[in-house]
Amino acid sequence: MASALRRRVYVELEPRARDGQGLSATNKFLVLCIIIASALAILDTEPMVSSGREDGFRLAELAFGAIFTVEYLLRLWIAPDNPVWAKHRFPRLRYAFSVQAIIDLLAIVPTFFAFGGGGSVLLRFFRVLRIMRLAKLGRMSSAWQDLATALSERRHELFLTISIAGFVLLVASTLMYWAEADAQPDKFGSIPRAMWWCIVTLTTVGYGDVFPMTVLGKGLAGLVALAGIGLIAMPTGILAAAFSDVVQRRREAARLAAEARKAGVSRSSAPDRSA
Amino acid sequence: MASALRRRVYVELEPRARDGQGLSATNKFLVLCIIIASALAILDTEPMVSSGREDGFRLAELAFGAIFTVEYLLRLWIAPDNPVWAKHRFPRLRYAFSVQAIIDLLAIVPTFFAFGGGGSVLLRFFRVLRIMRLAKLGRMSSAWQDLATALSERRHELFLTISIAGFVLLVASTLMYWAEADAQPDKFGSIPRAMWWCIVTLTTVGYGDVFPMTVLGKGLAGLVALAGIGLIAMPTGILAAAFSDVVQRRREAARLAAEARKAGVSRSSAPDRSA
Amino acid sequence: MASALRRRVYVELEPRARDGQGLSATNKFLVLCIIIASALAILDTEPMVSSGREDGFRLAELAFGAIFTVEYLLRLWIAPDNPVWAKHRFPRLRYAFSVQAIIDLLAIVPTFFAFGGGGSVLLRFFRVLRIMRLAKLGRMSSAWQDLATALSERRHELFLTISIAGFVLLVASTLMYWAEADAQPDKFGSIPRAMWWCIVTLTTVGYGDVFPMTVLGKGLAGLVALAGIGLIAMPTGILAAAFSDVVQRRREAARLAAEARKAGVSRSSAPDRSA
Amino acid sequence: MASALRRRVYVELEPRARDGQGLSATNKFLVLCIIIASALAILDTEPMVSSGREDGFRLAELAFGAIFTVEYLLRLWIAPDNPVWAKHRFPRLRYAFSVQAIIDLLAIVPTFFAFGGGGSVLLRFFRVLRIMRLAKLGRMSSAWQDLATALSERRHELFLTISIAGFVLLVASTLMYWAEADAQPDKFGSIPRAMWWCIVTLTTVGYGDVFPMTVLGKGLAGLVALAGIGLIAMPTGILAAAFSDVVQRRREAARLAAEARKAGVSRSSAPDRSA
Repeated sequence: MASALRRRVYVELEPRARDGQGLSATNKFLVLCIIIASALAILDTEPMVSSGREDGFRLAELAFGAIFTVEYLLRLWIAPDNPVWAKHRFPRLRYAFSVQAIIDLLAIVPTFFAFGGGGSVLLRFFRVLRIMRLAKLGRMSSAWQDLATALSERRHELFLTISIAGFVLLVASTLMYWAEADAQPDKFGSIPRAMWWCIVTLTTVGYGDVFPMTVLGKGLAGLVALAGIGLIAMPTGILAAAFSDVVQRRREAARLAAEARKAGVSRSSAPDRSA
Repeated sequence: MASALRRRVYVELEPRARDGQGLSATNKFLVLCIIIASALAILDTEPMVSSGREDGFRLAELAFGAIFTVEYLLRLWIAPDNPVWAKHRFPRLRYAFSVQAIIDLLAIVPTFFAFGGGGSVLLRFFRVLRIMRLAKLGRMSSAWQDLATALSERRHELFLTISIAGFVLLVASTLMYWAEADAQPDKFGSIPRAMWWCIVTLTTVGYGDVFPMTVLGKGLAGLVALAGIGLIAMPTGILAAAFSDVVQRRREAARLAAEARKAGVSRSSAPDRSA
Repeated sequence: MASALRRRVYVELEPRARDGQGLSATNKFLVLCIIIASALAILDTEPMVSSGREDGFRLAELAFGAIFTVEYLLRLWIAPDNPVWAKHRFPRLRYAFSVQAIIDLLAIVPTFFAFGGGGSVLLRFFRVLRIMRLAKLGRMSSAWQDLATALSERRHELFLTISIAGFVLLVASTLMYWAEADAQPDKFGSIPRAMWWCIVTLTTVGYGDVFPMTVLGKGLAGLVALAGIGLIAMPTGILAAAFSDVVQRRREAARLAAEARKAGVSRSSAPDRSA
Repeated sequence: MASALRRRVYVELEPRARDGQGLSATNKFLVLCIIIASALAILDTEPMVSSGREDGFRLAELAFGAIFTVEYLLRLWIAPDNPVWAKHRFPRLRYAFSVQAIIDLLAIVPTFFAFGGGGSVLLRFFRVLRIMRLAKLGRMSSAWQDLATALSERRHELFLTISIAGFVLLVASTLMYWAEADAQPDKFGSIPRAMWWCIVTLTTVGYGDVFPMTVLGKGLAGLVALAGIGLIAMPTGILAAAFSDVVQRRREAARLAAEARKAGVSRSSAPDRSA
């Protein structure tokens, strides 16, 4: 009896149990909850929006906390139905220590702690944690998987280019420290301080809070910018290209699978027609 | 009689009715009018240019408004000649609710309202609307179609990369809010405020109105910048690559069609020569 | 007699007359002169370098002016030897109106005018003109030809993307004018003023002299930045890709030609060996 | 006896002597030392970290200096075992003048000089030199080789694009000097000064310390930014693409070699099984 109910709940909650049919109604509702709860958690921090409406925000937070707690407990309950966890000795315990379950738990915890009072720093830390709920969305989409595939396929290139980028960053910081330390000791007075300039410049952000002032510093900074920007941008460029590759390959595979299925259907239905 | 005249007007106004022969004289004139009227609408807002010349600008605005009104009415009149609308029961009514016609209407309306007085905010809204005329140019070019094709072909990648970009944006904003809220409450005092910093940094614009000041904030900002810029730039990179693909494919198709036509002409003309 | 001398001067001065053998000694000397003269013209404007050394700079300017005048006259003299101009009725006159000759002339003129006194504005204009000499280098390199090929091959894509970029720029400027004109009339008080913000933002330069301050303006600016940067960067991205294509194709062609030459040599030399 | 010991030290120290087996324990220890020593050299410059801990930093510096001195002497000692240097008449002398040995020496020297007192400028120069140790890491990785291959393979494109970038930079600086020199003599008063603006703008860093203020200057700057950014970014874009090519090609070659080895193993082991 309980097992049949659990099975039904499993099919309703686990996206992989109903492949090719999209998200179940329950999961669609949960996605909506996650988005609204995250939006509220973001707006809650803005005094212009939240001041005077603290009670409303608190109530909504409690409601969403309750929903996600129920979801967490249900997922724990149905773990033995999932073939991934079923093969372990204690499927629920094993599931409780999976990345998904930990993210789920971290997204509930703040609700309970937020009302325990506590200092403002601790409070803010828990508030901030609530945004973790968005990561739950990640489990349902394939974006993270594709990104992980792209990362692992190009790990060699990424390692090399990150090494070069790091070396360029250090050498450029050292040069600028050497050139500008006397003129601007508070901004270039040490290599770590010069590194802030270096990151801001080589990513081309350029806030303008730190920039060279001596002729030597400007000359070096110009050379560093012209030569270094491309080297710093290499890892992200390679990652973006790899990600695009992965997505296109997967789409192509999906298209071929769909065509094969269609061809199979027409072949199997052909005798029916001839009959 | 009227039908023959309407047919003539149709061929003159509808670019698709004269394929391969470029724009008609009337349409060339209209394109010129759109460009001049838009340029005037832009300059009209600049006091350094318009002050003392208000009457001239008003007169030009009236003249162009009249031209575009006549164009709008003519296009409404010839709608039944266009095979696209002819198949509907009320071709003119159907046309009036098409995207093209609505843009055309929105581009005329400001002319009439601008002289009705009204508050300065309403006035500016209508002034600003006049720039919509430029969108009429879009209908005549193929740029928008290519962009739409590129968007729809890569909608899967774009959705994935926009999801990742959005998630990166939110997590980065949350981190910076956590790190800098105490030091700069007016600039990082809430997640939406930190989001402004985040967009300005991850797009590498970096105005310099907001930047981290604490050591923790600078460290996090450096990591966010190095890791996040490539992720934020992925959607636009994919779109740009897709657009380039679409344009090149269409150019290639045009080349093949031209060759086929030439080959067809030489084949059909070959017997003539042998005769 | 004169004709033989002219022929010799022609071979010495015209790079195309000695293909595959690199630049002649005279041309190498001229390239060096152009680089030094340009460097001096640049340094001449910097008071920190030039003050107290005005006579030296003036002397060097005179010397280089004399060298380039002699070069100009010699090139005019040898024009009939160049097959490109020889087929015209007045080869020297035709050459004098070629792009190369006009650049050469513009690069000499400032030398003569610089000493005629004149107002400081006129003087600076002529000083600035001296940098034109660097364009003479362009004639000897193939960079400009490759860039021109790339531009003409992709003119269709470039036109489309520049149209889109222009439209995005105008719409974004209009939106920001609408949102920020009241809050910052001196910076967003007209569409042309908002356009300066728009160019600075969409190219991601972001000086920080102009940025939105209202909540609506910041929201719009964030959307414009996230969506617009890729669209504005499309033309330059396409041009860079096209340029790279052209250079690689030319290099490939050069490699094939070199291989063919080698193969030809070994074939023709084979009988020699068998003999 | 000594020769056998030297051979052992050689195998331990020279990564190429043990191909396919990764770094030896000694080299792993040295890599760790380099990373720690570099991190300490960086932190040493930051007063917030080093003040009050000067003795600790000095001691660590001495210890690492000693380790690297021993390493340098050992590498000198084993040079005759390395086939690369063995073929020369004086293998140790030849090695001492190799790039690797000079970098190694430059990374030790500061340790000794740092205690000789000296002026603060000289002291900082030597401190800065210590970061050179990181370059020693480069010898052990293949990143620099790949970068060098990429540079040499595309030297033609790089030369052309760097020429164009340099020309664009000079012409843009000249134009802005011409437009803004009167309005902002301290920032655009000479071509070299305008060049600082130009580099900051065309790399899209945009600190905001220098920007045009006149209408003419803003117009020119807008055009320069829109047209020039792509041209300036061409060399780095080409280099990044070439680097990615080199790495992928090498990875592909490694994969093929691994497959060939596996195929060879299964073929040679097949008879064994049948036996």
